[in-house]
Amino acid sequence: MQIIKTIAEMKETIQNKLPSTIGFVPTMGYLHEGHLSLAKEAKKENDLLVMSIFVNPLQFGPNEDFDQYPRDEKRDIQLAKEIGTDILFIPSVEEMYPTKSAIQMTILDRTNVLCGESRPGHFDGVITVLTKLFHIIQPTKAYFGLKDAQQIAVIDALIIDLNFPINLVGLPTKREPDGLAMSSRNVYLSNKEREEAVILYESLQKAKELIKIGTTFEKVKKVVENSIKEKITSAKIDYISIFSYPYLKKVNKTDNIIIAVAVYFEKARLIDNIILNQNGTQLKRFTRGEA
Amino acid sequence: MQIIKTIAEMKETIQNKLPSTIGFVPTMGYLHEGHLSLAKEAKKENDLLVMSIFVNPLQFGPNEDFDQYPRDEKRDIQLAKEIGTDILFIPSVEEMYPTKSAIQMTILDRTNVLCGESRPGHFDGVITVLTKLFHIIQPTKAYFGLKDAQQIAVIDALIIDLNFPINLVGLPTKREPDGLAMSSRNVYLSNKEREEAVILYESLQKAKELIKIGTTFEKVKKVVENSIKEKITSAKIDYISIFSYPYLKKVNKTDNIIIAVAVYFEKARLIDNIILNQNGTQLKRFTRGEA
Repeated sequence: MQIIKTIAEMKETIQNKLPSTIGFVPTMGYLHEGHLSLAKEAKKENDLLVMSIFVNPLQFGPNEDFDQYPRDEKRDIQLAKEIGTDILFIPSVEEMYPTKSAIQMTILDRTNVLCGESRPGHFDGVITVLTKLFHIIQPTKAYFGLKDAQQIAVIDALIIDLNFPINLVGLPTKREPDGLAMSSRNVYLSNKEREEAVILYESLQKAKELIKIGTTFEKVKKVVENSIKEKITSAKIDYISIFSYPYLKKVNKTDNIIIAVAVYFEKARLIDNIILNQNGTQLKRFTRGEA
Repeated sequence: MQIIKTIAEMKETIQNKLPSTIGFVPTMGYLHEGHLSLAKEAKKENDLLVMSIFVNPLQFGPNEDFDQYPRDEKRDIQLAKEIGTDILFIPSVEEMYPTKSAIQMTILDRTNVLCGESRPGHFDGVITVLTKLFHIIQPTKAYFGLKDAQQIAVIDALIIDLNFPINLVGLPTKREPDGLAMSSRNVYLSNKEREEAVILYESLQKAKELIKIGTTFEKVKKVVENSIKEKITSAKIDYISIFSYPYLKKVNKTDNIIIAVAVYFEKARLIDNIILNQNGTQLKRFTRGEA
């Protein structure tokens, strides 16, 4: 595995490898099974697997956890190597943002709901860093976890509206044995919170069954809310929402449906979701382009 | 020469031609010697010459000349063919902007002076359409005329800040025998205005000589202003400016210098400039990247 820390070397390396197909898994590090499952799929579907580790300051709000975001580069390198990563790109903040950028990228749609509402500017930071990484790595396919479903919806808009020559692939959320969605932020949970947190997944499963039998969305959301409040007496629910996917608008008959929740714990805000296609089964793979 | 009208066909064609080097000349059509000189150079330096013709509504203000912008597709196709263009990309507005874009691109630097000041949003439109065209065409080198010097400065920022894997090439302004900078908008000039318009070039040449002998920028600008006003009694001068290039800031000793003018005629606003490097000679080629 080649470890690259500069943009110049990364670009040159890619230039010399063309025209291989490149599978790209951008991460913020502190790798878990979720990241590794993306990497495995990318490895299988492309000639070259490039993974990046970059905790992107641009997507953290002033009161968010950029400094505290968990990091373990040594362990990440080991895991990336074991999974068969060909190139691991680990740029510094100075490398990615040497000067204040003259170009500002803003996303105006798909962000006034869910996490976008409580994290202003977050997705602007996401599309900016991904635009840069896409230009540096020039992937054939880029892989993301459906746990961050709104992020995939935003990247979908980015790729379509700016005509990126990239196929977007969204893969299912990896879960702990009890159902908790894997997340680098799970390390922030106390033992008690860790036990309680499983209710996010359980209530989504309940929602799925209710939707299958035609329950109204309002009723479904109420049931999810009550389930969460019952299990976590101190829970601060950020949102429980149902939208079309990836449009994140009112659901039409022909749309995929996302049911998404976000709950604040003491030191972490956890999110989870399930996406159902028109016949009520869970979406296995979200793709845009020829992927 | 292959004429392509859809993004899908253009992307597919490029995909199949990789990894040739691609020289790209984006234009708004109504081709003149300026465009053709860019195309000749691009042809010489690359395996494949792609030219685009697209009058981009996004870079015209509400009171600007989008509808009236001169168009002659038949003649353009003939000229592009004669010059050895391999692929001519002529997308429709609907093809480039099928829906309202969710992504907004804004340029915050290098635009609060010169044309940027009187054309708010113009360069946002330029960077948006170029980002799309760059993704569709995937050029090795992109060629622009230094007549639109601020445009090149803006594209320079775009390419650097978003890490586009593209080399930027700026080539000298093509001129009529009397010195008038070639422009598709010259057709708007009356005979009298056409004769007067040569003063833009003449006053810039005078400015160059004055700068060479150490005249202050304030004095130089005054001389240019008086020359223009003397020749064109009804002239409405938009700006006469001297800045560092491509930064468009106050000039430091080590910077290239741009002297730029913009003058309103009855139906057209004409611009011209010269760029001097540190030893006072005119810049022959602006490049960014390995070009």
